[in-house]
Amino acid sequence: MPSKFVLIAYDITDNSLRNRLVDVLFYFNLQRVQYSVFLGYISETHLNHMVEQIYDDFEHEDVKILIVEICKGCFKNIRSINYDIPKEERKHLVV
Amino acid sequence: MPSKFVLIAYDITDNSLRNRLVDVLFYFNLQRVQYSVFLGYISETHLNHMVEQIYDDFEHEDVKILIVEICKGCFKNIRSINYDIPKEERKHLVV
Repeated sequence: MPSKFVLIAYDITDNSLRNRLVDVLFYFNLQRVQYSVFLGYISETHLNHMVEQIYDDFEHEDVKILIVEICKGCFKNIRSINYDIPKEERKHLVV
Repeated sequence: MPSKFVLIAYDITDNSLRNRLVDVLFYFNLQRVQYSVFLGYISETHLNHMVEQIYDDFEHEDVKILIVEICKGCFKNIRSINYDIPKEERKHLVV
């Protein structure tokens, strides 16, 4: 199952809510590329679990969260300055 | 020419540099959806001009900028909480 590349951006004023979301995103092995943006590769199954958890736990009036799956075509068009775009780890490689 | 939907995220410590980028992004009619993220529709020509200007004016060691073009397929998969995803204005509609 190929992984998906996702971008998560969030704007959360409450510190504890924000820290809890950060923990969730780190738990799913995404990379914090700037204060309020995570990038990374995630399996479809894990992505669905993560999205479900985010909707369950973070539906709150002053919480803004954006979850964007970035396909291979869009990934190729990414342009950046000094941005460390995570590389997919070849975990499944059996030698 | 169909517009492109783009996401720009940035992490810039210097206030004047950050404000100058914000001005550029507003100039190209993008919408500031959170402190360091803009979203919006832009023609291919304007996108190329904007990217060129960003590379010319913001190539700086403590500037991080990410520019993601989001295709129709990825746009449909966007999930969000309380996020105001800009709608495309039908400017070209002649009635």
